[in-house]
Amino acid sequence: MARLVMKFGGTSVGDIERIRNVAAHVQREVDAGHQVAVVVSAMSGETNRLVGLTRDVARLHDAREYDVVVSAGEQVSVGLLAMALQDLGVAARSWLGWQIAMKTSDVHGAARIETVDVAAMEEQFAEGRVAVIAGFQGLSSNGRITTLGRGGSDTSAVAVAAALKADRCDIYTDVDGVYTTDPRMVPAAKKMNRISYEEMLEMASLGAKVLQTRSVELAMSHNVRLQVRSSFDAPDDAKFKNMVPDDIVGTLICDEDEIMEHEIVSGIAYARNEAKLTLLGVPDRPGIAAQIFGPLAEAAVNVDMIVQNMSPDGKTTDVTFTVSQDELERAVKVVEAEKDGLDYSQLQSAPEMAKISIVGVGMRSHAGVAQKMFTVLAEQGINIHVISTSEIKISVLIDADFVEPAVRALHAAYGLDEEVAG
Amino acid sequence: MARLVMKFGGTSVGDIERIRNVAAHVQREVDAGHQVAVVVSAMSGETNRLVGLTRDVARLHDAREYDVVVSAGEQVSVGLLAMALQDLGVAARSWLGWQIAMKTSDVHGAARIETVDVAAMEEQFAEGRVAVIAGFQGLSSNGRITTLGRGGSDTSAVAVAAALKADRCDIYTDVDGVYTTDPRMVPAAKKMNRISYEEMLEMASLGAKVLQTRSVELAMSHNVRLQVRSSFDAPDDAKFKNMVPDDIVGTLICDEDEIMEHEIVSGIAYARNEAKLTLLGVPDRPGIAAQIFGPLAEAAVNVDMIVQNMSPDGKTTDVTFTVSQDELERAVKVVEAEKDGLDYSQLQSAPEMAKISIVGVGMRSHAGVAQKMFTVLAEQGINIHVISTSEIKISVLIDADFVEPAVRALHAAYGLDEEVAG
Repeated sequence: MARLVMKFGGTSVGDIERIRNVAAHVQREVDAGHQVAVVVSAMSGETNRLVGLTRDVARLHDAREYDVVVSAGEQVSVGLLAMALQDLGVAARSWLGWQIAMKTSDVHGAARIETVDVAAMEEQFAEGRVAVIAGFQGLSSNGRITTLGRGGSDTSAVAVAAALKADRCDIYTDVDGVYTTDPRMVPAAKKMNRISYEEMLEMASLGAKVLQTRSVELAMSHNVRLQVRSSFDAPDDAKFKNMVPDDIVGTLICDEDEIMEHEIVSGIAYARNEAKLTLLGVPDRPGIAAQIFGPLAEAAVNVDMIVQNMSPDGKTTDVTFTVSQDELERAVKVVEAEKDGLDYSQLQSAPEMAKISIVGVGMRSHAGVAQKMFTVLAEQGINIHVISTSEIKISVLIDADFVEPAVRALHAAYGLDEEVAG
Repeated sequence: MARLVMKFGGTSVGDIERIRNVAAHVQREVDAGHQVAVVVSAMSGETNRLVGLTRDVARLHDAREYDVVVSAGEQVSVGLLAMALQDLGVAARSWLGWQIAMKTSDVHGAARIETVDVAAMEEQFAEGRVAVIAGFQGLSSNGRITTLGRGGSDTSAVAVAAALKADRCDIYTDVDGVYTTDPRMVPAAKKMNRISYEEMLEMASLGAKVLQTRSVELAMSHNVRLQVRSSFDAPDDAKFKNMVPDDIVGTLICDEDEIMEHEIVSGIAYARNEAKLTLLGVPDRPGIAAQIFGPLAEAAVNVDMIVQNMSPDGKTTDVTFTVSQDELERAVKVVEAEKDGLDYSQLQSAPEMAKISIVGVGMRSHAGVAQKMFTVLAEQGINIHVISTSEIKISVLIDADFVEPAVRALHAAYGLDEEVAG
C-alpha cells in the first residue's frame, strides 16, 4: 500500500465526462490498495470567466474579494468529483482550502502556503475515504480566502503530498511526461524516465512549461517525488495492470540520488522573446553594477543573463544583460534616465533574441561539455551573443531566427535523439 | 441612524450592470447614515446551472457535496457586490456562511438556521463598513457547508436582521409590494402599506409568492420588521430624498399592533392546481381519521383542507380532503390500497379545483364576514365544495374555472378595489 496524491488540472475536469474519467483514474489507485488524496483545479474556462466578472465590475479590485470570487471555481469541481467517485462506489469527500486548513500568507492573489493540517484527512484515510482537495486556494491568518496565483494547484498538490508524507505526487497533464526538448520542434525528442529536481527547475524556468516552478522548488525542499503523466490514458489501460508503486509511466522528478545513470546532458530548453541590452563604455569602478541594476529592480524589470567585459583600454567596461521582450522598452527608459550617473558612452538594444540551454547534472563531472555546444553552434553558423553558466546548465543567447536549427543540432550532438528501430 | 438589512435576489444581481445598481441602492442607505448588511443570492441562472451539473454527474447525490457545489453561486455574487461597492467608494467586505458563522442544522439541502454570530460584523459597522453576506448558505456543526433550500436567502436575511437587531429588513424583489390580490388578475388590486405577519403567512402559503413562508415565520418569531419593495426603483429616485427610517415605500410586514386601522379583509389569495378526494360511506368510529391520513402522510402526500360530514343515517360518514393536483394519483393509490381497512363504499376524485381565501385580522372582531363571502359567490353562480376557516381566514374550494370571477367579485365586495379618481 502506498499513499498517493493525484493532481488534475482544469482541462482534465473540463466537463462531466472528463470528471468521470478522473474518478476512474482515482478508482484504479484505490482498487490497487492505495490511500489517495486528489487535488483539482477549476473546470477549464471557469477561472477565466470568474476573473472576467471581477474585471467587469471594477477596474481596481480588492484582492481579497477577487480571491472570494475566483476560488468558487475549485469549490464546484471538488464537489462534482466527490460525487463522481461516490457514483463509482468509491468513498470520498471534498475539502476546501479553509476546511483543511491550508494556511497561507495573506498576499491575496499570490499567497504562499505556510502549513497544511492533514490530521482530519488522515483519519478519513483510515476509513478508506478519498480526500478531494480544492487546489489553488487557502486560508489567511485572519480567516479570509486566499489564492496562490495562476497554476497554483500544482503547488497545492505538492504541499499536500509533503504534509501527508505521500510516496508520490502524480501530476496528470496534457503531456505524458517531460521530454529531452520540445517534441513539437524536435520530433526525435525522447520522454525522460527520471529527472532530478535541479534539472527540472532549470528546464521549467527556461521554458518547458510542464510544471509551475514553485511546485518543483517545494517538492525539492520537502523531497516529494513528483510524477508528470498523461491524463489522456484510459483509466483501465492494460499497462496499469499489475503495476507496483515504484513503476513509472510518465517522468519522475526526484532526488538525483534516485537516478542511477546520469546523461551528461539531460535536456535542452529554449526561451524565445528575449531581448538584449548593452551599455558600452561604462567607467570601470566599484559599485557600477549596483548602479545599473538597482533602478531596473525598482522598476520591476526582470533581468536574466548578465555579462561584463573589460574593454581593450582597461578603463571602461561593457555590460550586457537580457530582459524579456515586453520589458525591453521599460528597461531602455530606466537606463536612459540614469545616463548621467552611469556615464556610459552608448546604449545598444536588440529585441529579437532567444536563449538556448543545455541542462544536466552529469556535466558537473565531465569536461568539454560547453566546448561541444559552442562547436556545434559554430558549425551551424549561429553566432553566440551572451553565455552564462551554472553548475548544471549552460545557456547561450542567439538570434531568435536560429532557435530551431540550434535545438535540433544540440539534441543530436548530445545523443538525445530517440533511436529508431530498423 | 438606523440599522438595515437589505436583501437582493438572483434577478437583482443577474449581471454586472444590475450588481452596480444594487450597489447604488446600498450606497443611498449608507449616505443616509445607516448601518447596512446586504444579503444576496446567486446571479440568476447560476444556481440552476450548478444544480444541473450535480444532476449530470450522478443520479444520486451526496447532499453534502451538492451543498459544496451550489453554494459557490453566492460566493461569486458577494465578492462582486463588495467590489462594486468599493468602486463607489463605499467600504464593504463579503462574508460567506462559514465566515459569519451562520450555524445551521446538518440537514444538507434544507438546513435550518440555528445561530448567527454577528460580533465581527458589528465591529466592522463601527468602522463604517457594509457587510455583504452570502444568502442561502450556512455551516453545520461538523464544519461542512449547508444550504437552506430554494428561496433560502429571504430566511438568511431575516436571521441576520434578527441577530443584528436591525430596525428593518428590506426584501428587494420584482414587485413593489404585497397586493390585496394578484394584480395580473384584478387590475384594481391595491398595494398594501402594511400587513401583519399572520396575514402575510396566510397570503404567502396560499399562493402570493412574494416571500418564502419560512422567512415570514422567522420574522414573526423574532419580531423583525420586513419590507417588500421594488428592486427596479432607480436608486436615486426623487421619492427617496429626505426619507426617514419609518417611511415605507413598499409593503411593511409587521406586528399587528403596529397597524392602526385594520381592514376587515386585507387580501384575497388563491391557489390553483388543487384536487379533491371524497370517501363516501366510511364507518363512523374513533380513529378513522388517523387510519385515512396516516398512510397518506407516510407516502408524503400533503393534505390541505379536510372536512368530515355525518351521513343522514348516522352510522357512516363522508370524508373530503384536498391535495395538490400532482399528488392526486399517488393519493388515490394510497387510499385504494387501504380499502379493506377503511371499508368505505365509494371513492370520488375531482382534479380541477381551486382554493380562494379571504384573509384579515379584522375578521376576528366582525361578524358576517363568511356569510358575505358565501352570498357573493352564490350571486356569481359559483358552487362551494369545501369550506375551511381559521381565526383570520376563510377558504373555499371551487371549480378551477371560476377562479377569476370569484376573486374579482370578492375583491370588490370587501371594498378592496382601488378608488379611481374621477
